[in-house]
Amino acid sequence: MTTTIDAPPLGPMLDDIVRSHRPPREAGSVPANIPSLAAVPFSRFGIAVATAAGEIFTSGDADVPFSIQSISKVFTLAMALRRDSSGALWSRVLREPSGSAFNSLVQLEVEHGIPRNPFINAGALVVTDRLMEETPDAATAVLRFLTGQTGEPGPFIDEAAAVSELSNSSRNLALAHFLKDFGNLRQSAEAVVENYVRQCSIMMTCAELAKAGLFLAREGRGTSGTVVSRSEAKRIGSIMLTCGMYDAAGEFAYRVGLPGKSGVGGGILVIVPGHCAISVWSPRLDAKGNSLAGSAALADLSDRTGWSVF
Amino acid sequence: MTTTIDAPPLGPMLDDIVRSHRPPREAGSVPANIPSLAAVPFSRFGIAVATAAGEIFTSGDADVPFSIQSISKVFTLAMALRRDSSGALWSRVLREPSGSAFNSLVQLEVEHGIPRNPFINAGALVVTDRLMEETPDAATAVLRFLTGQTGEPGPFIDEAAAVSELSNSSRNLALAHFLKDFGNLRQSAEAVVENYVRQCSIMMTCAELAKAGLFLAREGRGTSGTVVSRSEAKRIGSIMLTCGMYDAAGEFAYRVGLPGKSGVGGGILVIVPGHCAISVWSPRLDAKGNSLAGSAALADLSDRTGWSVF
Amino acid sequence: MTTTIDAPPLGPMLDDIVRSHRPPREAGSVPANIPSLAAVPFSRFGIAVATAAGEIFTSGDADVPFSIQSISKVFTLAMALRRDSSGALWSRVLREPSGSAFNSLVQLEVEHGIPRNPFINAGALVVTDRLMEETPDAATAVLRFLTGQTGEPGPFIDEAAAVSELSNSSRNLALAHFLKDFGNLRQSAEAVVENYVRQCSIMMTCAELAKAGLFLAREGRGTSGTVVSRSEAKRIGSIMLTCGMYDAAGEFAYRVGLPGKSGVGGGILVIVPGHCAISVWSPRLDAKGNSLAGSAALADLSDRTGWSVF
Amino acid sequence: MTTTIDAPPLGPMLDDIVRSHRPPREAGSVPANIPSLAAVPFSRFGIAVATAAGEIFTSGDADVPFSIQSISKVFTLAMALRRDSSGALWSRVLREPSGSAFNSLVQLEVEHGIPRNPFINAGALVVTDRLMEETPDAATAVLRFLTGQTGEPGPFIDEAAAVSELSNSSRNLALAHFLKDFGNLRQSAEAVVENYVRQCSIMMTCAELAKAGLFLAREGRGTSGTVVSRSEAKRIGSIMLTCGMYDAAGEFAYRVGLPGKSGVGGGILVIVPGHCAISVWSPRLDAKGNSLAGSAALADLSDRTGWSVF
Repeated sequence: MTTTIDAPPLGPMLDDIVRSHRPPREAGSVPANIPSLAAVPFSRFGIAVATAAGEIFTSGDADVPFSIQSISKVFTLAMALRRDSSGALWSRVLREPSGSAFNSLVQLEVEHGIPRNPFINAGALVVTDRLMEETPDAATAVLRFLTGQTGEPGPFIDEAAAVSELSNSSRNLALAHFLKDFGNLRQSAEAVVENYVRQCSIMMTCAELAKAGLFLAREGRGTSGTVVSRSEAKRIGSIMLTCGMYDAAGEFAYRVGLPGKSGVGGGILVIVPGHCAISVWSPRLDAKGNSLAGSAALADLSDRTGWSVF
Repeated sequence: MTTTIDAPPLGPMLDDIVRSHRPPREAGSVPANIPSLAAVPFSRFGIAVATAAGEIFTSGDADVPFSIQSISKVFTLAMALRRDSSGALWSRVLREPSGSAFNSLVQLEVEHGIPRNPFINAGALVVTDRLMEETPDAATAVLRFLTGQTGEPGPFIDEAAAVSELSNSSRNLALAHFLKDFGNLRQSAEAVVENYVRQCSIMMTCAELAKAGLFLAREGRGTSGTVVSRSEAKRIGSIMLTCGMYDAAGEFAYRVGLPGKSGVGGGILVIVPGHCAISVWSPRLDAKGNSLAGSAALADLSDRTGWSVF
Repeated sequence: MTTTIDAPPLGPMLDDIVRSHRPPREAGSVPANIPSLAAVPFSRFGIAVATAAGEIFTSGDADVPFSIQSISKVFTLAMALRRDSSGALWSRVLREPSGSAFNSLVQLEVEHGIPRNPFINAGALVVTDRLMEETPDAATAVLRFLTGQTGEPGPFIDEAAAVSELSNSSRNLALAHFLKDFGNLRQSAEAVVENYVRQCSIMMTCAELAKAGLFLAREGRGTSGTVVSRSEAKRIGSIMLTCGMYDAAGEFAYRVGLPGKSGVGGGILVIVPGHCAISVWSPRLDAKGNSLAGSAALADLSDRTGWSVF
Repeated sequence: MTTTIDAPPLGPMLDDIVRSHRPPREAGSVPANIPSLAAVPFSRFGIAVATAAGEIFTSGDADVPFSIQSISKVFTLAMALRRDSSGALWSRVLREPSGSAFNSLVQLEVEHGIPRNPFINAGALVVTDRLMEETPDAATAVLRFLTGQTGEPGPFIDEAAAVSELSNSSRNLALAHFLKDFGNLRQSAEAVVENYVRQCSIMMTCAELAKAGLFLAREGRGTSGTVVSRSEAKRIGSIMLTCGMYDAAGEFAYRVGLPGKSGVGGGILVIVPGHCAISVWSPRLDAKGNSLAGSAALADLSDRTGWSVF
């Protein structure tokens, strides 16, 4: 399906969205277990749109690096899929919505160690474990991939934040040992969690993140060649739409109508298939762990532009 | 977003899909608790595409009536939403994927009687209860709605099948009494289940079903005027995509990439936003309760046409 | 094992327990779904001890009838067991603690319609269904059994309360239809719930209840002959100890150390094997659904007398 | 309650029980994750009774050391309780039956990191963590305690087996990290699991185990003074009865009627309050993880002697 979008005057529109959605006061919350995130001023708000045609529009704090956290799961999934010609990954992780909090152990137990999808923490640990089979330092490989896509040396791993987060990683260690118990990890639980935490600690700006995600809006074609096949790009989009926003995937599909992936750092990456990648960032989170101002801004942008897959 | 589709020669393509996917032998299963469905020959296979432009393409057993079963949930949702200007329905049912079998009581208990979405049985019972507030004979109202959309007197309630299914409705009665216990039903549990079973026993052909669902592909505009608002049409599409295929919604989004709703009668209704409504029917089901041949045919059609929202 | 108890001066001790434990003010709660229970004055407190030797000691409101509610499950179990020479009942209900709230549907679903034990509501419905195989009016048969054991015409069914409770029985109807769906009820769900509610609405005094339960302290021998075998009497005791106090069975075993069964009418029946049956009644309940003052009084009595199976 | 037991001729009876219950062929299973247990011959069967009067009766392989595994939880609980004058331990672990498999993470999540009882693995890890607050090498302290109670230097830690088991401890590590995540471990997850595995690897004979458990039959009085108070001894008994046999506690209470604690090494420790401690050992397990021949032998012994708390 080719799509023709009545090009809105994007620059001014993004400026207006920043004016409307930048938080005037502290609201929502920050994750208790990641100290570095608590230090970010509540009023931060950035947005960027990278179009298939190669343009980039930004506004607000679009050049301030933030911790991408779970948004990294989109990129590790893409990296694992292009190595996974046999489809073996899909025997280790499902593609179904999880229907409960993002780090729940319950469903993992009921389904015998096969995570529901690659975007819940358990599934992301399996994907990272898969990457480590070829590249023990998977987090650095992810960083290199992102740098390649953005065409700039901007992204970096906040190693101090990673060390700090790692010392608060009991839940992820529990998940990893549990996966190991079910025979669904090849590497040691500790090594997988370390790589996972480091990939989550990658710092990027909105502008960089939109550029890095653009291949998903361009049928898999990145800035320097094919990242994943057209078919895989569509499929990553479907997983983002059904599973990308923790336990608010349905609500986000309902309000915004676009594939998205959020992180507890307050970032959200959204794909308009065939047209553009959007990133938004504001640090304070709603009860489901998604950026409060970011979600609202995306709903607003979807209403203004008509962008929706439905 | 407007969409331009390189019109495929749909007629021959549908004929070829019928040739490829009509089951040559008995496979899959039929639901144990609905005797009337077991009598349908396994080789039945029909497909129909109703375009936004008003054309209708059909092939195979597209004119044989079948039991729409859970596909009725799409229409009752649309009917309830256009009466629900206040949004009160959404305080009684969520819009999140369920992450478990379609008739599970567990999540209902954990979430205190608020079903995860309108397409699991518990949620559909709440929607039917809502319709009954204005029209006690809700099933007949659904039938009238469908007749209106198809522009033909074809659809009918198989009352004998409904009576038979009603005598095997222990699970739905359990759900209804459970909802009642949580204060989330206004009518009696027995009356709601009776209306629900009768709406599920509506018989339609593929051709009629595609026409009846066309308003969802046309931003809410049906054959004789607006059915739901553009915004509500999109939102029903998002619920179909995330919740429409029981516990295989993710897999269907991944393989087909289009909003769909299946029924245990073997029918599936699929929406290509802005372009067409597709219905397919073949009675034998996979382990998740979706038409085996129908799902395969839709994946094939999606591959051939490029139709996908991603 | 024969037990020799240093006979305490029971009469004065019970008087002292009434003085210490009769509630001076309204505390705890009453069940929301059984209107007749809400009308009982909070200060009611009665206690009775029926000894194996045939004595009966009472104090406080021991002659005021109250609704035995779930205590009836002990008697229906005994009645079902003496008809169940083949042990077939134990293929329909387990004997394990439930580990969650007494009316949870979750475990029932996970364990495919086999209730964890005969004292959770689902299990009790199966037991009542079993009794109805021989006596359709099972509730009246239970009443007749109790009258026989007490040797007095005192016990009666509060039919008005039963009718009222029946109109608030959505949860039990849900359980019964769910059991029916799993093939674990022979009679209609509605008929089983009606009998169950009527058996729960039996009114007895503490004095009558202690006498009726005495056969469990006398190795199965009731006032006019054997009720159940010695072996079955011990086994009912073991089920009472592990499952008799809803989700506080462990706590009760820890504090009191005796087999007990409580009801939401505020009554508790306790067995001192080989020695006596104790009943206590006070209407206000703790968070687990057990009599607040009754539990405290039994812990006190156990401390004073040294009565404990451990 | 004082108990008078018609002394059976225990020696010959135990010999007869060995003859009847020593497994003639391989049946049941051994735990997959503990290699050292798989090497034990299936025909091993030992039994010992230590009486309150100081006698010890044994038969079969009663002098062959075996791995006590989870039976160690009884002793760590006793050790923790005598240090826990404030009752603080009971805010970190409940006393209710778990109602599901012994190492389930589900209930732990639902109940926010508070294990259901001290005998499921999660609860035992909390108890070991509590012991480590005073004695970092808790396992050696447990060994010293057992040596003290038996009055012999017999018990020892099979350190090679512990190392081997530790390398297969993913499930316990998952539990420990999960507890840590909920703030319910003070020491590191790894250190607690190491101590736990070492305490489980303690090797004892039936004769030693019966002697070591005797304090629970003697109101807390051990061989060289009070171990726990009379009240705590009774309470440990109540926890054994309701929670001591994994998910077969109800079945064991029903068949045997005595407080017991089993281990996957095939041992079971049983208490006859006021009279004796019984230990039995045979390595092959039933589906619930309890010694197949051991359980049968205890049911037989209970029937022959009349020993039962009910």
